[in-house]
Amino acid sequence: MHVIVVYDVDKKRVVKVHDFLARYLCWRQNSVFEGEIDYRQLEEVKKGLSKLIDSDDSVLIYELSGKFKVHVIGHERNPQENII
Amino acid sequence: MHVIVVYDVDKKRVVKVHDFLARYLCWRQNSVFEGEIDYRQLEEVKKGLSKLIDSDDSVLIYELSGKFKVHVIGHERNPQENII
Repeated sequence: MHVIVVYDVDKKRVVKVHDFLARYLCWRQNSVFEGEIDYRQLEEVKKGLSKLIDSDDSVLIYELSGKFKVHVIGHERNPQENII
Repeated sequence: MHVIVVYDVDKKRVVKVHDFLARYLCWRQNSVFEGEIDYRQLEEVKKGLSKLIDSDDSVLIYELSGKFKVHVIGHERNPQENII
């Protein structure tokens, strides 16, 4: 499945969250990762993130089951295939 | 259609982008908006954003055509219905 991960975490934890997500997904722009993972990996990502972040931090993982299209306005930091 | 908008823009423009997107979508967390809009509104959002941002800024608009699920880790800044 395709997922989009967006995170809003304290500066102290940004690098750790970034490095953890980079093991599974592609960096798209600040605080945004995206990519194809399976259900086992999704559970790993969720568990790993919950250990890394603080209760006041916020991470949203969008699990997409259908098609999607990405419209880019401005500069695309890390170009990916935008129509899947 | 459902859209997720994530933006990575210079501090000088964050408030303007935020206020513009708030006219169409729901704020989810820092630099993330989400909601249901139609194609006419999508074009308005794209046009409006391209006037507001600088070429070095980056905005990604995910246009979702299928179902999706949101997994929340940590604190959900602005709770929405997470399974559509």
